[in-house]
Amino acid sequence: MDIDSISSPVQRYITKVEERMRIQSDSYHPELTTALNHLLSSGGKRLRPILTLLTGKMLGCDIEILINLAAAIELLHTATLVHDDLIDGAMLRRGIPTLNARWTPAATVLTGDVIFAQAAHLASMTNSIEVMQLFAKALMIVVNGEITQMFDSQDRKDYRASYYQRIYSKTASVFEMATTSAAMLSEVDIKVLEAVKKFGYEIGMAFQIVDDILDFTGEQETVGKPVASDLRQGLVTLPTIYYMEANPTDLDLETLLSNSKANEKNIKRLVKSIRNSNAIEDTMCEARQFVGRGIDFLSILPPTTERHSLERLAHYIVQRSF
Amino acid sequence: MDIDSISSPVQRYITKVEERMRIQSDSYHPELTTALNHLLSSGGKRLRPILTLLTGKMLGCDIEILINLAAAIELLHTATLVHDDLIDGAMLRRGIPTLNARWTPAATVLTGDVIFAQAAHLASMTNSIEVMQLFAKALMIVVNGEITQMFDSQDRKDYRASYYQRIYSKTASVFEMATTSAAMLSEVDIKVLEAVKKFGYEIGMAFQIVDDILDFTGEQETVGKPVASDLRQGLVTLPTIYYMEANPTDLDLETLLSNSKANEKNIKRLVKSIRNSNAIEDTMCEARQFVGRGIDFLSILPPTTERHSLERLAHYIVQRSF
Repeated sequence: MDIDSISSPVQRYITKVEERMRIQSDSYHPELTTALNHLLSSGGKRLRPILTLLTGKMLGCDIEILINLAAAIELLHTATLVHDDLIDGAMLRRGIPTLNARWTPAATVLTGDVIFAQAAHLASMTNSIEVMQLFAKALMIVVNGEITQMFDSQDRKDYRASYYQRIYSKTASVFEMATTSAAMLSEVDIKVLEAVKKFGYEIGMAFQIVDDILDFTGEQETVGKPVASDLRQGLVTLPTIYYMEANPTDLDLETLLSNSKANEKNIKRLVKSIRNSNAIEDTMCEARQFVGRGIDFLSILPPTTERHSLERLAHYIVQRSF
Repeated sequence: MDIDSISSPVQRYITKVEERMRIQSDSYHPELTTALNHLLSSGGKRLRPILTLLTGKMLGCDIEILINLAAAIELLHTATLVHDDLIDGAMLRRGIPTLNARWTPAATVLTGDVIFAQAAHLASMTNSIEVMQLFAKALMIVVNGEITQMFDSQDRKDYRASYYQRIYSKTASVFEMATTSAAMLSEVDIKVLEAVKKFGYEIGMAFQIVDDILDFTGEQETVGKPVASDLRQGLVTLPTIYYMEANPTDLDLETLLSNSKANEKNIKRLVKSIRNSNAIEDTMCEARQFVGRGIDFLSILPPTTERHSLERLAHYIVQRSF
């Protein structure tokens, strides 16, 4: 199962989405254009635009408006990544140098801001105030999530709750917005809107859970960042939570959670223990449950090509290896 | 002439604008609420909201919508200031520590982003797609201006042109948006919209020119930053341009413009020369011309209390000493 075959019903629009992301680049400063092109060329799989396009096409949305929406969502996502990489001091994303690694922090902040502006511009081109409001809300959720992660030590009493909250803010909120806004721009009743909203939510959660698994199982060359980068920052994700629940007395884990500086040796041992336990499979099982629930929500819709592609997209999310 | 008497026709709405800027703070992380309160309490004179409110009230705009608009504009302005202070590494603004001085850069970036989101949220509450589009465009102009300033050495052939371009991007574009968007939300014909747009532009230009004068003449305690901070960064503003035109062979100036490191002694001598020349008065004269043109544009409107207040606001801009 590859992403190109999944996106085939909307493949011809994806080029247009990318063009529109670049729109008006003549009015930008040349350095900024270079930066934007760099970002776009390291663009990933365009899952969010594909999700938006498939949902909108399935529901009969006007294609031109839908293309603006998909471009706006991908740009909003890109802008938050740019600021996020700056904050983390990340030098690589998807194995490619971040803007941050090539530019000054100041230029990186401003590039993120311009991308926000361009996202807002494209969102306004949908001519829907409802969509604009959803955009503003989603941005607030994403950023507030990052702030919470920055200031709060994790709730030791309830790692799970704070984990779900965090991955919703970080990832699922944008997937949810992608499907919901496409429905808002189509003439559908509230039941359909709720169904695709929940589909977006569930597969967004699954996507981030798989990302967190890949942080343990992926090779640096494929994932594009060091293995167990979350754990190194003291961040407890679902594989660690499953491991913790099964092995509450693991000393390496205790050292890490007590916030005393876990050294490389501790971390390596802990990563090895987690990899060799059932934690990875338990986590993957949970991701598949999210996907299953998501697909169930689509069952009220007619069995169109697009609905079928959305289901395949959901499965793809838990099968991908990067 | 004080700002409170000028803003009296809309004074009772300003408190509401400030409340709305704080709206939803319960859903924010507590650290963020503290930061936002800090920003709001160091809030300055609220010229942009006053401008928006007076223009909208003059043109018969619905007051509730107008309050949202005024809050959105002030927040957009605040967000760009937050990122701007981060970029400049500024520790003081209006004599009060910047967010940047108290927080990490990461938290400062995110705070700016949340304020953008809140600005977008309030702008969408105007229910006008046209206003949303104007917002996105204004943000792009402001940020693109900052990027240009960051990367481009000033055009040595035409300091004036690049100066006007810069102060438009930085300041006048937001004043222009403040009046234009208020007109968009009122039932006015295109002539009136164009008139208030030009009024906003002219007084915005005047405002920044006066700011640039105060950078030479103000005392650090009043202005809240070191004297001649622009010149120290090698940035040529209008007083220097007038001085340069009259004294093209001043050696201190040449040293500064040749980008060789001008030392404190050079700068102090140059600042003294500029202060003692006619450059300051010439610059002030030009600012008054902008104000005069701005007021002329209002002449097509009925002589209401609000129009009179807008005229007084325009005069206030060139008379203020901080």
